[in-house]
Amino acid sequence: MGQQHGKQVLFSQVKIDDAFWSPRIAVNRQVTLAHEYEMCRTTGRLDAFKLHWEPGTEPVPHIFWDSDVAKWVEAASYALAAHPDPELEQRLDDVTALIASAQQADGYLNTHFTAVEPDKRFTNLRDWHELYCAGHLIEAGVAHAEATGKRTLLDAVCRYADLLARVFGTGEGQIPGYPGHEEIELALVKLYRATGQRRYLELSRYFIDQRGRQPHYYDLESARRGEKARGDYSYCQAHLPVRQQESVTGHAVRAMYLYSGMADIARETDDQTLAAACERLWNHLTGKQMYVTGGIGASRSNEGFLDDYDLPDDTAYCETCAGIGLIFWAQRMLQLGCDRRYADVLERALYNNVLAGSSLDGRRFFYDNPLAAYGTKKDSQGRLTQTTRYYQRSEWFGCACCPPNYARLLSSLGGYVYSVYGGNRAAVHLYVGGEATLTIGCGQVTIRQQTRYPWDGQIAIRVSPEKPAAFQLALRIPGWCQSFRLQVNGQDVSDAPETNGYRLIERTWNEGDQVVLALELPVRRVFAHPSVRACQNKVAIQRGPIVYCAEQADHSDPVRHLYLPEDAALQASFDADLLGGVVTITGTARAALPGEALYGPAPLTKPCPIRLIPYYVWNNRQPGEMRVWLPIAP
Amino acid sequence: MGQQHGKQVLFSQVKIDDAFWSPRIAVNRQVTLAHEYEMCRTTGRLDAFKLHWEPGTEPVPHIFWDSDVAKWVEAASYALAAHPDPELEQRLDDVTALIASAQQADGYLNTHFTAVEPDKRFTNLRDWHELYCAGHLIEAGVAHAEATGKRTLLDAVCRYADLLARVFGTGEGQIPGYPGHEEIELALVKLYRATGQRRYLELSRYFIDQRGRQPHYYDLESARRGEKARGDYSYCQAHLPVRQQESVTGHAVRAMYLYSGMADIARETDDQTLAAACERLWNHLTGKQMYVTGGIGASRSNEGFLDDYDLPDDTAYCETCAGIGLIFWAQRMLQLGCDRRYADVLERALYNNVLAGSSLDGRRFFYDNPLAAYGTKKDSQGRLTQTTRYYQRSEWFGCACCPPNYARLLSSLGGYVYSVYGGNRAAVHLYVGGEATLTIGCGQVTIRQQTRYPWDGQIAIRVSPEKPAAFQLALRIPGWCQSFRLQVNGQDVSDAPETNGYRLIERTWNEGDQVVLALELPVRRVFAHPSVRACQNKVAIQRGPIVYCAEQADHSDPVRHLYLPEDAALQASFDADLLGGVVTITGTARAALPGEALYGPAPLTKPCPIRLIPYYVWNNRQPGEMRVWLPIAP
Repeated sequence: MGQQHGKQVLFSQVKIDDAFWSPRIAVNRQVTLAHEYEMCRTTGRLDAFKLHWEPGTEPVPHIFWDSDVAKWVEAASYALAAHPDPELEQRLDDVTALIASAQQADGYLNTHFTAVEPDKRFTNLRDWHELYCAGHLIEAGVAHAEATGKRTLLDAVCRYADLLARVFGTGEGQIPGYPGHEEIELALVKLYRATGQRRYLELSRYFIDQRGRQPHYYDLESARRGEKARGDYSYCQAHLPVRQQESVTGHAVRAMYLYSGMADIARETDDQTLAAACERLWNHLTGKQMYVTGGIGASRSNEGFLDDYDLPDDTAYCETCAGIGLIFWAQRMLQLGCDRRYADVLERALYNNVLAGSSLDGRRFFYDNPLAAYGTKKDSQGRLTQTTRYYQRSEWFGCACCPPNYARLLSSLGGYVYSVYGGNRAAVHLYVGGEATLTIGCGQVTIRQQTRYPWDGQIAIRVSPEKPAAFQLALRIPGWCQSFRLQVNGQDVSDAPETNGYRLIERTWNEGDQVVLALELPVRRVFAHPSVRACQNKVAIQRGPIVYCAEQADHSDPVRHLYLPEDAALQASFDADLLGGVVTITGTARAALPGEALYGPAPLTKPCPIRLIPYYVWNNRQPGEMRVWLPIAP
Repeated sequence: MGQQHGKQVLFSQVKIDDAFWSPRIAVNRQVTLAHEYEMCRTTGRLDAFKLHWEPGTEPVPHIFWDSDVAKWVEAASYALAAHPDPELEQRLDDVTALIASAQQADGYLNTHFTAVEPDKRFTNLRDWHELYCAGHLIEAGVAHAEATGKRTLLDAVCRYADLLARVFGTGEGQIPGYPGHEEIELALVKLYRATGQRRYLELSRYFIDQRGRQPHYYDLESARRGEKARGDYSYCQAHLPVRQQESVTGHAVRAMYLYSGMADIARETDDQTLAAACERLWNHLTGKQMYVTGGIGASRSNEGFLDDYDLPDDTAYCETCAGIGLIFWAQRMLQLGCDRRYADVLERALYNNVLAGSSLDGRRFFYDNPLAAYGTKKDSQGRLTQTTRYYQRSEWFGCACCPPNYARLLSSLGGYVYSVYGGNRAAVHLYVGGEATLTIGCGQVTIRQQTRYPWDGQIAIRVSPEKPAAFQLALRIPGWCQSFRLQVNGQDVSDAPETNGYRLIERTWNEGDQVVLALELPVRRVFAHPSVRACQNKVAIQRGPIVYCAEQADHSDPVRHLYLPEDAALQASFDADLLGGVVTITGTARAALPGEALYGPAPLTKPCPIRLIPYYVWNNRQPGEMRVWLPIAP
């Protein structure tokens, strides 16, 4: 990188007041958090912390249940910090106390391996989610303390982390292991930052450094269990030491959480070899394994990656959690270096793959996020199927990682908007209305964004330092943007110096200085690399960061029969009454006229009005066909 | 139908002498049959009939092993009939005696349920292959007797069939069941024809009539085993009584064997409701569920059908046995009515999907027959994978149904060429060089075909009745043929009356009358119904009955980057030295020039020579990419 590292401007310093985001965040706070709490309660996830489970009774606390509750605590804490709510605060007090009450004398804190299989503690790091749950509890403790100043859960997870630091390591009598499902690595860095205790950073670095070393811990561990070694550990990114890994492999969420932890450690310890590994893996993922929606992990079978360029649209898995993990990683890569490539991907995943994760009413969620859907199909019992290609949002999942992950991202969105680099550069990564307080050098600066982004490319930024201050304001010019204008106090500065996709305005700023960035948002036709078989002869429509799709509700011909010729004129227009207010893309496409024959001459076509909606709002009306990639010819 | 039924002209009355088929049939006889015998021997399939298996020893005779040996006996018998071979005859004597020696006193004949699980006899008709194996043994017994006149196996299977006729039925003390894997239905009709014993026809009709009736036998049977009923029996076409079935469902091979038996019974008993059901199912299969290669059964998971028009090319299962089953069914539909629709499908499956089932050297076989392949991929142990989309032929399979099925079809090919209808119409369904003796009315007629079909459309047919005879010669004009000329003794009769796609030449035939049919064989671009998502914007190339593909061995650019514009001129030329002698299609296509970006503007392309080979010969050179459906634009 060779750049100064950045410092994230935490969500708590950023107040979002944005026409696009504020309503989504309000629904998340008012509906989704309550819904998820109820789900955790009624499914037994909360009661599990009472440790009352009796053999033979249902439900059995599952090995990943703790993480669902922890993510709810984290999400609710962020929401509370942004919006005081005595009822929510009381609920958080109760839940955090309940969690803390499950902690054992030695600091151990896990419902399944305390109440259900106490003899199995730390015996299968490869397959079970023990350290993954620990990581989420740690993130929850840090978030709750930041939001409320209350240390109930933070103190508990510190004690737990202290136990883990004693148990795990290469020292005499320690377990030289590391988690099969990564997560604790990034959580321990958060704990280090929250407490200043370097031992948590060291434990995180240990987990990352030890991963994939020979003799392989998972071989030893499975031998201890009397099992045959699996041999290939690429599924959990443990096939090689992390610094030797050249390409993303295996389970996508695990991969994103690991790479996020690697980026954190690279930044905190200024580890160039780790940073270089992150860069290689980033280039591989975003150059050969990422969907146009920012979704990653094409395959359901391993919840992860297929071969390079193998990105089928209708069976795309694109787990919501994987897209969120990509955002986590991108945000951390931005702290390693202020580079548009990271923010572009962050934005792509956020506005498309991840935002689709919840229905507009905040009550139904996607686990998979395919780029094409076939509509509805009933099983033999007459129920709507949830099989691949006939996918609808669900209220909850047996494995419920995605809904609370979505909730915690939405309620901490402010933390992804800005970074400060080296004390003299304030970078704006995302264009989101609201006010932020940045510490630049020794002074404080308030930055206020006003915009109707992503529907409109006009962004007004008011810069208000406590006292006149000289620093760089770095504004990201998105990679999709071909043309823009930039002004300061009415003076055109469009030719301001550019570095890694950011325009740098360096000056002495005074109270109320006004910056205006105007990004052009034409309707763009996007094509995939020709090795992506599923996208050959197909086009995707994008405007700004928003990827569009054709949904059946807007068309009388079956969506599968629609074609979008290259010369079809397309218009963008805002429809305030549609799907919460969206810009739609309309024009005249063509529809195939099917004959009877299964095989024969080229099908006839007819002109056909088309209306494309943002991908993130699909499946909010009657279920039907959906397609992001549209054929360009019959 | 309302037509006179047809009578198949058996393989034994047809001598094939054909530039295209004779070499394949010779390899089948000289290499494949010997190879498959060795595989049956070394895997223990033959020894299983000694009933020496001891608990705890390997290999355990599998529930479907008997059928593999039976199909080899059937294939070898046909081969022997066409080509005397004392060594093969001796081997057949030994194997048939060995099989017969496993017969129990009561007539029962099954290695697994005699040696391994004697207590399980007839307790799980739904899942186990007991009656399926019985059917194949019956077909083998009939074929062996027809070929050699020896009754060893025929007598044994008659005794077995007599046992089955006592055990199964709706009478007092009988089992009101039927096979989960159909096959015995069509076999019993063969046994009826070979023996004249109507009870075998009745047993076949019982199995067909009883299928899917309520109370459902599989519910009762699973209850007896203390298992929960499965509820949905569409996988084995037992979800409804067969006359109520509207669409093809479930496992494709099972479906084809059932429908073949239904067509047999419809013909033998002149059952119009059964014939109507066959016609509905035929129209559904060929109108919504068939690949351009004649492959059927798109899905690996159920070895069967997906939704209508859901015909992915790279994951196409298209089991060789299913294509063979379709040929069996089509041949039987042709006996219900002389209609080109049946023969066209028979020809499509035969020259493409099924012929691809074996390598040119006769030693390697396809189980799946996908329409696109990605080349080679190594697993973590460095072995070539045999996963979907990275498929190569194999020498054998644990479930080895396909190789002997291919062998028996090739060695009985003569039986698919002609039918005689109502005593005064001789129909030519396939254009295959050789000589056939037909019984028309009360006389015999020798028909000799000379042709280089499918490479050339010129077919010379010499008609030689014992004495001058008046009858119709019906020549099929393939559905793909747009233009032809027809002559009798030099006189143009191209305007001869047409019925259901056959041209009828009605006259008094004299010794040596010469008919010449000239079919035009242009290179044709074929498109799929627009609801076939996998084929949108793609074209397949066909010439005559042959479907073509692009294989990596003929191209320097990756096959996945090739595009075939609609205006690209294509030429056909015979290459005697290539892949056993094939007509290739050459021209100038275009290849995409990939950039670095995963998403961006439309890819640039360049002109690129293209050479297409017949689909059936792919994977006979170095493994590489293959594609039948080619994009028409970048």
